[in-house]
Amino acid sequence: MIRLTGATVLTPDVEHPQGVLCMDGKRIVYAGPAAGAPPAAPDDEVVDLPGRAVIPGFVNPHTHLAMQLMRGIADDVALQPWLQEHIWPVEERMGEEGGALEQHVLAGSRLALLEAVAAGVTAVNDMYMAMDRVAEAIGEAGIRGVITRGIVGHTDPERRKLRLGRELYERWQGAYGGRIQVALGPHAPYTCSMDYLGEVAQAAHDLGARIHIHLAETHQETADLAAQGLTPAHVLLDSGLSRQHVIAAHYVAPAESDFALLEHMHVGIAHCPISNLKLGCGFAPVARLREHGIPVGIGSDGAASANVLDPFLGMKAAAWMAKGNSQDPTQLPARTVLRMATYEGALALDLNDVGLLAPGYQADVVVVDLRATHLQPVFDVFSALVYTATARDVERVYASGKLIYQEGRHLAVDREAILAEARGAAERVTQQALRS
Amino acid sequence: MIRLTGATVLTPDVEHPQGVLCMDGKRIVYAGPAAGAPPAAPDDEVVDLPGRAVIPGFVNPHTHLAMQLMRGIADDVALQPWLQEHIWPVEERMGEEGGALEQHVLAGSRLALLEAVAAGVTAVNDMYMAMDRVAEAIGEAGIRGVITRGIVGHTDPERRKLRLGRELYERWQGAYGGRIQVALGPHAPYTCSMDYLGEVAQAAHDLGARIHIHLAETHQETADLAAQGLTPAHVLLDSGLSRQHVIAAHYVAPAESDFALLEHMHVGIAHCPISNLKLGCGFAPVARLREHGIPVGIGSDGAASANVLDPFLGMKAAAWMAKGNSQDPTQLPARTVLRMATYEGALALDLNDVGLLAPGYQADVVVVDLRATHLQPVFDVFSALVYTATARDVERVYASGKLIYQEGRHLAVDREAILAEARGAAERVTQQALRS
Repeated sequence: MIRLTGATVLTPDVEHPQGVLCMDGKRIVYAGPAAGAPPAAPDDEVVDLPGRAVIPGFVNPHTHLAMQLMRGIADDVALQPWLQEHIWPVEERMGEEGGALEQHVLAGSRLALLEAVAAGVTAVNDMYMAMDRVAEAIGEAGIRGVITRGIVGHTDPERRKLRLGRELYERWQGAYGGRIQVALGPHAPYTCSMDYLGEVAQAAHDLGARIHIHLAETHQETADLAAQGLTPAHVLLDSGLSRQHVIAAHYVAPAESDFALLEHMHVGIAHCPISNLKLGCGFAPVARLREHGIPVGIGSDGAASANVLDPFLGMKAAAWMAKGNSQDPTQLPARTVLRMATYEGALALDLNDVGLLAPGYQADVVVVDLRATHLQPVFDVFSALVYTATARDVERVYASGKLIYQEGRHLAVDREAILAEARGAAERVTQQALRS
Repeated sequence: MIRLTGATVLTPDVEHPQGVLCMDGKRIVYAGPAAGAPPAAPDDEVVDLPGRAVIPGFVNPHTHLAMQLMRGIADDVALQPWLQEHIWPVEERMGEEGGALEQHVLAGSRLALLEAVAAGVTAVNDMYMAMDRVAEAIGEAGIRGVITRGIVGHTDPERRKLRLGRELYERWQGAYGGRIQVALGPHAPYTCSMDYLGEVAQAAHDLGARIHIHLAETHQETADLAAQGLTPAHVLLDSGLSRQHVIAAHYVAPAESDFALLEHMHVGIAHCPISNLKLGCGFAPVARLREHGIPVGIGSDGAASANVLDPFLGMKAAAWMAKGNSQDPTQLPARTVLRMATYEGALALDLNDVGLLAPGYQADVVVVDLRATHLQPVFDVFSALVYTATARDVERVYASGKLIYQEGRHLAVDREAILAEARGAAERVTQQALRS
């Protein structure tokens, strides 16, 4: 048994100063005040952590890991030229599935997971191509992931991409001791017809798979749906997608009638504040969604748009944006934001034993050092974690009970090899020279 | 002469890969491509910095350093209860000028400067009380600062605070070899009558002092002025304040007629994006101000409201907020944001040899390590600095040509002593127990 002592343990809304967290194998067996902890056994590994906070691993409910290779190639441009002039040409050069694409996706995903794990992320929800390699990268990093092959229906007359999605499920669902889950990924309502979405829905139902979709990503999208007599939530309902658990990314452009329907369908929302702000797409109605009991996680989107996979920046952006946009500083208080970045992200992904420090939950546990100079004084641990702490304050990351990161060192993977591989891949696919 | 080689040198909009920066005494003597650098002399101190960026020190044009002691005591509350129930009671307990207040302000300011310097800040504009101690803290930290005694006119019938402001000027203007500049600080239009502002204007004119004022901090303030037939800019003009250089903090609630007037009066704006977002006060019209040629720096405000003094977070917040609010991702591109955080901040403070890497400018120089894993790949140095880098990537800070921070170590001050002193002061004035 691993026993973390001396730290403030958060479970999740209650803080236990000088608390105790015990992990046995892959599971948490205790989290709370020292007084209630199980008796220590002689062969326990005891780690004393005064001045630290022990929190659940962060859940990133929407990302495109492999796009790490394109970080910073095209900032400060509008969405359409960003896609057409910058991102798509690079994706062309990444190659084909079964060919060079596999190697590039592996290199980019591994690089992305270095950043994510060091920032305390222990679960991701990824949509891209060549997803076998993403599964591999997640598996070897030691964390968990929901993976999905993005499906643009408009360019899939022969249903090849849908077949790739099914096959991915068959190969990887439950792999790495259950750490990999596979969803089907119709890209968005504006790239898949209702008929196509219906076919995906049927396939997902047959497999028992989750759905991961971009939904209401722009105001234009919601307006276009309205012109067809639809709302974003009705796309899910009418196509049959909502028979499965749906993870909807972005949702910045709601239809008024959607809230009750999203609640009823138990949809999970992946709020991506940095990406939405930086691309100027709008503000997700986070407070209203949460009033309906809809779980709202904090996602990064890909590094090509958001630049970072850092949940500490995501939490700050979510809190600042909600308060600033509503002109109500009481919106999304620190406790709520931390809960969104962990537990609600897990609920949004339908991972029902993840995101809490509680007995029986997966031992995905992060230790944050609150003793750094730039955090002082710390009067409120939630405030320090959300408004002041940074990814560099993460000291230890346990995933499924295994220590995978400690004080700057990646213990499950070879950082230097990953960096070297990624640098070559990034220069090749972008045809640009690195600057550092 | 100190010679930095091998890094990307930014001067300021042009990048020189493998560039050279030379400092001699307190001044920069060269910044640019290696080919044009002055010949190396045998006693030069050469520092080779491949993979780093060399940038001007950050300028924080609006802060309240001593409020660092109150970080995190009251987040997520509305402005009025925040002030009345949380901040003012603590300020009461901080004591009187000439008494305990002096010690508390010194402790808080020193603590704040640990955070600021480690993040690459080499100039601040501070408004608070017991300002002799702030001058002392800035002086010993080795950086530069404009300091001002905040003056609430409504509680100053005998002009005691105005006298303190004048005396501060007489004692400190030009101290520490010119590193300290003293402004007069009428707090805000809503706390000073026009007559009182007129008296401050006359005093500032007599001294030749700058003015530092909160202006258009809320929409309510601008509405209240409109009811009196005034606009924020007209307060400056009609009171006579604008005869001096004015630094106006916040400016989130413009009057349409103000832009041309602010331009004409050469007012500098201290934009405080994190504070404005977190308190839900509104969005400063940064793009429009800059279209008028008005310099807009990026300020932190105090840690009691904004939690951090970190210019890397300030730059992200400024960029995200401008794009998100305008729904225009081309607003405030990375180069502009870096320029605001350095050069425009200096212009806003009327520090005319600060904020650029150029011959004759003050040698306030920051080295940022772009080799960290979380930054890779780096294709664009400006993008990496603004959207991805963090304060922890700051490797070296030179102020007036002197190395004051290197790889986590503060070279000008005793960090442990400052932390110990600040912890005691923070607990005493807040009457709360520290959590780490």
